[in-house]
Amino acid sequence: MTSQDYKFEGWLASDASAANGTMQWKEFEPKVWEETDIDIKITHSGICGSDLHTLRSGWGPTLYPCCVGHEIVGIAVKVGSQAEGGIKVGDRVGVGAQGESCLGRKGPCEECASGNERYCGRHWAGTYNGTFMNGSKSYGGYALYNRSPSRFVVKIPDAISSADAAPMLCGGVTTYTPLKRNGCGPGKTIGVIGVGGLGHFAILFAKALGADKIVAISRKGNKRDDALKLGATSYIATDEDKDWAQENGRSLDLIISTVSSSKMPLAQYVSLLKVDGTLIQLGNPEDGSLSIPAGMLIMRGAKLGGSVIGSPGDIREMLELAAEKQLKPWIEERPMDDANNAIVDMNNGKSRYRYVLVNKW
Amino acid sequence: MTSQDYKFEGWLASDASAANGTMQWKEFEPKVWEETDIDIKITHSGICGSDLHTLRSGWGPTLYPCCVGHEIVGIAVKVGSQAEGGIKVGDRVGVGAQGESCLGRKGPCEECASGNERYCGRHWAGTYNGTFMNGSKSYGGYALYNRSPSRFVVKIPDAISSADAAPMLCGGVTTYTPLKRNGCGPGKTIGVIGVGGLGHFAILFAKALGADKIVAISRKGNKRDDALKLGATSYIATDEDKDWAQENGRSLDLIISTVSSSKMPLAQYVSLLKVDGTLIQLGNPEDGSLSIPAGMLIMRGAKLGGSVIGSPGDIREMLELAAEKQLKPWIEERPMDDANNAIVDMNNGKSRYRYVLVNKW
Repeated sequence: MTSQDYKFEGWLASDASAANGTMQWKEFEPKVWEETDIDIKITHSGICGSDLHTLRSGWGPTLYPCCVGHEIVGIAVKVGSQAEGGIKVGDRVGVGAQGESCLGRKGPCEECASGNERYCGRHWAGTYNGTFMNGSKSYGGYALYNRSPSRFVVKIPDAISSADAAPMLCGGVTTYTPLKRNGCGPGKTIGVIGVGGLGHFAILFAKALGADKIVAISRKGNKRDDALKLGATSYIATDEDKDWAQENGRSLDLIISTVSSSKMPLAQYVSLLKVDGTLIQLGNPEDGSLSIPAGMLIMRGAKLGGSVIGSPGDIREMLELAAEKQLKPWIEERPMDDANNAIVDMNNGKSRYRYVLVNKW
Repeated sequence: MTSQDYKFEGWLASDASAANGTMQWKEFEPKVWEETDIDIKITHSGICGSDLHTLRSGWGPTLYPCCVGHEIVGIAVKVGSQAEGGIKVGDRVGVGAQGESCLGRKGPCEECASGNERYCGRHWAGTYNGTFMNGSKSYGGYALYNRSPSRFVVKIPDAISSADAAPMLCGGVTTYTPLKRNGCGPGKTIGVIGVGGLGHFAILFAKALGADKIVAISRKGNKRDDALKLGATSYIATDEDKDWAQENGRSLDLIISTVSSSKMPLAQYVSLLKVDGTLIQLGNPEDGSLSIPAGMLIMRGAKLGGSVIGSPGDIREMLELAAEKQLKPWIEERPMDDANNAIVDMNNGKSRYRYVLVNKW
């Protein structure tokens, strides 16, 4: 099979109104081919909150036309002669949210050299809405085919279905990586703020990593049952449980905050940390900053940190753990044809907890 | 010698105006004696920024009359029959900023049990302006004698003079502890924001711990020579060096921020951190919060943390290192009689870099 055999078509947004469900199915020009690239025939594409932020230009002006989707799983149909990772045509593979980093092509890069590609400071192209070093634009997974640099393409273990694997590639690894790197494991008590797409993964991975106690924290009580089924050992509804902050003070080693509002009660969340504890913020509010009384950090030795996605090495590690623990995300499959309705439903908070678009082949 | 042989006298503040140099020499009622206590005949007492905050009720209402000073060195003159730490009458000893913690007397305490007394959440009495569990008020080191629970009294190594040891007990350990606990050592690049009492110690201890690179950061260039003499390898004057943030971006593993203004350019400071780097805030502004764009933390995996003083174990560890490395703080001795002038000079930023009050005996 050669590149002539297939066309790159997908759901394209032409302006910010696309977030309301007005993407149009069109052909697009893929990345100009390099021998380090891999073409993927897409079978599954998860819907991520970032897709909505990008469709509506919420994180800055989007490069329309834009095809979103960065939780891509499919079959490798073309593999460049200089591709890395040992991927062969026919392999089941995936791509997450990052499509390219400098890989030392602009001078020495500590991050790319150490498996920390996600923090490369010299060049960063998202899997969509990015610009590759060769000047091409990147297009995402709400489509039939995707072309990505092989460094960011991972094999999917046999034990994980494609539908399950897709949302792990961004939503999953975004929670797995800070949990793992901040010591989540036996003996540790973990808080997860927000029970949505990311939060549901944070609970699943905290459990898979062996945490002693997993406290799900949400505003309302309506996700309590889900959280407990996912693996949470207890639940806090901040709008309903009086004195939740006092009663749970200094009880958590690590908190993963998946919410992205600058109005969240950050000081109260931090008050839940044990001494020397860490809160990792994943959600990036479109509208603001994080603000915390200095004394909240000083008087308990607490840390407030951030984390973005995971590097290819983190994704592989996560997939191994998920395969070993038979981790099952809660997903709902939606036909690729239905992408416009699916993003509107996602925006309205209806997903429990991740939609995965599926191509008919 | 019994407690009848000496009186507790010192410089007492009766209201917030004391910060202007109106403390009065008076007798005060020490802690009601317990057999776990030690009485110290004070020879030296460092002047700490906290003394000024407390004299003027800057961190909340002060319990006047108040005798400040929590960098106390002297001779043990009375040692309770249940005192811990092996201290004998005649030993040269010191007390830092913390005078008491719960020590498990209110139920199990993870912090007190693990040498993290500084973060005890059940009971905390400062060496001055605090209330002991037995109901007594605590009085500090601008005085002739001090009575403190033995858990917080440490022996001073022979290799360190009393005048040098005094300011280490708060100023020194407040910088040593976060440096040590956040990995300062060979191969690491350290930033120190603020070249004052704390900052000068941060530079000295970063050097003693073997950091590769120590960057002193101040607004003006006038402390450049001092910083380099103290051990800094380079210097940034943020008011004078154009593009200092861009030129030094992603260059530091760890930053110790000793400044305490909520107006500091925190986002720019964080931009100096390498990926996965940490900024530890020590200064507690009287007037505000720390605010940071979430993306600054998320996009480099950075952490913003806090740290307060050091526990007795940290103080002992620091004194050992200081003795081994022959670390010399830059101090100026002032007669105890001159305390009012000394605090005014301190408030005016004249100390280079720590005043130590000395009793004539």
